Amino acid sequence: MDLNADLGEGFGIWRLGDDEALLGLVTSANVACGFHGGDASTMHRVCAAAVRRGVAVGAQVGYRDLAGFGRRHIAYDFATLRDETIYQLGALDAFCRLAGARVRYLKPHGALYHAAACDEAQAAALVAAVSGYDHELPVLCPPGSVLAQLAVGAGLRVVAEGFADRNYLPNGQLVPRSAPNALVSDPDEVAARAVRMATERTVVAVDGSVVPCPVESICLHGDTPGAVRCAELVRAALIDAGVTPTPFA
Amino acid sequence: MDLNADLGEGFGIWRLGDDEALLGLVTSANVACGFHGGDASTMHRVCAAAVRRGVAVGAQVGYRDLAGFGRRHIAYDFATLRDETIYQLGALDAFCRLAGARVRYLKPHGALYHAAACDEAQAAALVAAVSGYDHELPVLCPPGSVLAQLAVGAGLRVVAEGFADRNYLPNGQLVPRSAPNALVSDPDEVAARAVRMATERTVVAVDGSVVPCPVESICLHGDTPGAVRCAELVRAALIDAGVTPTPFA
Amino acid sequence: MDLNADLGEGFGIWRLGDDEALLGLVTSANVACGFHGGDASTMHRVCAAAVRRGVAVGAQVGYRDLAGFGRRHIAYDFATLRDETIYQLGALDAFCRLAGARVRYLKPHGALYHAAACDEAQAAALVAAVSGYDHELPVLCPPGSVLAQLAVGAGLRVVAEGFADRNYLPNGQLVPRSAPNALVSDPDEVAARAVRMATERTVVAVDGSVVPCPVESICLHGDTPGAVRCAELVRAALIDAGVTPTPFA
Amino acid sequence: MDLNADLGEGFGIWRLGDDEALLGLVTSANVACGFHGGDASTMHRVCAAAVRRGVAVGAQVGYRDLAGFGRRHIAYDFATLRDETIYQLGALDAFCRLAGARVRYLKPHGALYHAAACDEAQAAALVAAVSGYDHELPVLCPPGSVLAQLAVGAGLRVVAEGFADRNYLPNGQLVPRSAPNALVSDPDEVAARAVRMATERTVVAVDGSVVPCPVESICLHGDTPGAVRCAELVRAALIDAGVTPTPFA
Repeated sequence: MDLNADLGEGFGIWRLGDDEALLGLVTSANVACGFHGGDASTMHRVCAAAVRRGVAVGAQVGYRDLAGFGRRHIAYDFATLRDETIYQLGALDAFCRLAGARVRYLKPHGALYHAAACDEAQAAALVAAVSGYDHELPVLCPPGSVLAQLAVGAGLRVVAEGFADRNYLPNGQLVPRSAPNALVSDPDEVAARAVRMATERTVVAVDGSVVPCPVESICLHGDTPGAVRCAELVRAALIDAGVTPTPFA
Repeated sequence: MDLNADLGEGFGIWRLGDDEALLGLVTSANVACGFHGGDASTMHRVCAAAVRRGVAVGAQVGYRDLAGFGRRHIAYDFATLRDETIYQLGALDAFCRLAGARVRYLKPHGALYHAAACDEAQAAALVAAVSGYDHELPVLCPPGSVLAQLAVGAGLRVVAEGFADRNYLPNGQLVPRSAPNALVSDPDEVAARAVRMATERTVVAVDGSVVPCPVESICLHGDTPGAVRCAELVRAALIDAGVTPTPFA
Repeated sequence: MDLNADLGEGFGIWRLGDDEALLGLVTSANVACGFHGGDASTMHRVCAAAVRRGVAVGAQVGYRDLAGFGRRHIAYDFATLRDETIYQLGALDAFCRLAGARVRYLKPHGALYHAAACDEAQAAALVAAVSGYDHELPVLCPPGSVLAQLAVGAGLRVVAEGFADRNYLPNGQLVPRSAPNALVSDPDEVAARAVRMATERTVVAVDGSVVPCPVESICLHGDTPGAVRCAELVRAALIDAGVTPTPFA
Repeated sequence: MDLNADLGEGFGIWRLGDDEALLGLVTSANVACGFHGGDASTMHRVCAAAVRRGVAVGAQVGYRDLAGFGRRHIAYDFATLRDETIYQLGALDAFCRLAGARVRYLKPHGALYHAAACDEAQAAALVAAVSGYDHELPVLCPPGSVLAQLAVGAGLRVVAEGFADRNYLPNGQLVPRSAPNALVSDPDEVAARAVRMATERTVVAVDGSVVPCPVESICLHGDTPGAVRCAELVRAALIDAGVTPTPFA
């Protein structure tokens, strides 16, 4: 099982999240590429540190919206989104090459993550960008999403990710964030759910039923001290259960 | 002899220069990389068109200053300038790869061009970026500049460029832009000077003396209708003189 | 009847439209405020020139999206859109005060214009901004739009604008841009329609019926030579018909 | 004696400094205006909170350089710097008016602070902006600086500020930051120096001599927990010494 998290999301003087702590926990680092967060020196530093530790670097591509941190939907046209994705991939890849590695996957960020899960044009733009840039590059995204379908259709490898700290519906979908029980807050329960995902590829849904959860990566969060502590518990629980976190890429 | 010009300097809805006309005249295109001008879709389009026509694509890297078009000096620190240069190189290279080619050289833009000609720290940042990104990449810059010296010292190939529409001092340096006779305005004289540069590697200085001008590329301008017309004359005169414009890279 | 047009939409080195020509034709200038286009020096210059000529200055507020020129929808939250609108109003007002005048109205730009016509949250954000900044400031917008309704509800003055170069449906709405007959292209017909709007407050709809068009301002375009020529015809036809173009504000 | 500090320097999702703590300590808030830091909603919130507490709001104007936080010198021309300063003044004033107040002074930020202290063109641009926008607006800056001289020459009020946590030379100038003894690090000593500045208008220079320090405001820092603690000590010590911190404006 792979563990992924968002890294390198500071900008200029401003910091966000604990890159150092997360690099010791994850096996895949979704590194921001400067459009919604991140800057060249942060990318340089995080890529170098990730490669040193054997952590795979993925392109966390986002909308060109620093002020909104890529979290609000923008009605991009296909060509612009494709081209800005290629731009971000190339920029990040430069720092990976400098560190003796390569970008290993793409994961959309924020509002683009959500748009690509259901909007054909935006999902197709990401698929066109990856296909054009490097056909071997996997796409990390929710299972069953429009992005996953289009990527598979284009012959790309799709890696599905799960959330140990989110509740699931009996149909295998996430409980929407707007619902009161969207989140699992008890760290021990989060860790137990991660172990179940890793060892059985299942999750216990909100109605108590056990449903398939065919994911290859679990997404961790690290933007608060509590989140880092929870990520540590997840990693430790996986290792206790005999699961060695390993990059999927 | 190579002919180079700045291309792809529009941004979003705003256009600048005549990319189409220049692509028919130059052998090397200095493509803006999005920091002082240019955007992802412009880069995509210009790289594709350049490669189709056999024009070499170079990274026209600049300061992060859209509002000032990279034309005002910014007191960058070494690491930030190095990293932003790597970022721009990688982004442009992605579009070159998409077109079946690669970035073939680096040329600094505007205030960075001038800073790198005399400021050790900024020149060193460009050299570090090229050395780290791709040691085979030539640097296009003024002969005798600090950038040229540091690049040669680092084992990089330096390609010197000349200006057929600028007057030269007897010592081989350009007459400063502030001087009344900085520019050569008669298009036929510009063309004749280009031919001399290409065939004899000399230029007639303002005092009438003939001085060495050991350049491998001549810089053309295309931001006004008159400039494009002048560039056409230069190209035609070179061909008449038996010089086939050819990319240096 | 008032004549309004977008002005000051250049950014940095990049120009857009013919501000000088338009200032001689319009009675109200919608000046871009730096978020989707425009910059401080352009605002300074255009405000000074407008006030000198007796042209009313309005705030052409837009999304924070230079790369997209404010033309793609962004899912702003209420507070951010309200605050960015206040920011733009204050910035433009500074240049109006410098010229001995004041901002005289607000008109949303591009995707914000369209969003505010139908989206309650975005329309309400504009209304809250104007109400907070200066309750006397009129809002220039399409008649019948959600923005018009909310503005009236908040006690603001609404000024409806019409388009002499757009076709109308029998219900008084514009033919959507996607339809083949959205535009009226014959300049003489455009001018005749403007005269009808100004003198009879009616428009001939696509089915030939004459429908009410209760507008106080006609929007002109000036981003192409043809558009400027057409605007000149409109202004001349109005004057011939005894209508003196006058600012509504 | 007035106490001033930088506030509202976050941007979008990114936070910086402890605005809440500082608003309880200072009498004048230098609020960032969105060019080097700050955004519309932060400005709205901080202006409202400052006015509620009786804290005077000043425009902390800076270079257009979010990526460099306005801390690196940019070779602005006079007109652009003047116009961007007017733009920032107007934008901040809008939020002050909303809160029932007005911008009460201008203080340049970062590299602009340093440039305006010695560069005539940049200092003159700030003076022209203030003179044009509101001739009654004081300028907060180092005593004896070029900015102070030009502002006085233009008939503006100049308010000199001192630094209780910086060492001074016998000539009344600050020990340069590059020197090992630039900073006073002991909080109690900082507080004692603030009391001396407030009650005697003097400072003990590095050679032990007592030199005049004719300042009307003391600059506090709040970007680290230690800095906030030190600012608390300064304020408490002033009150103990019978000095009531009061806005100069």
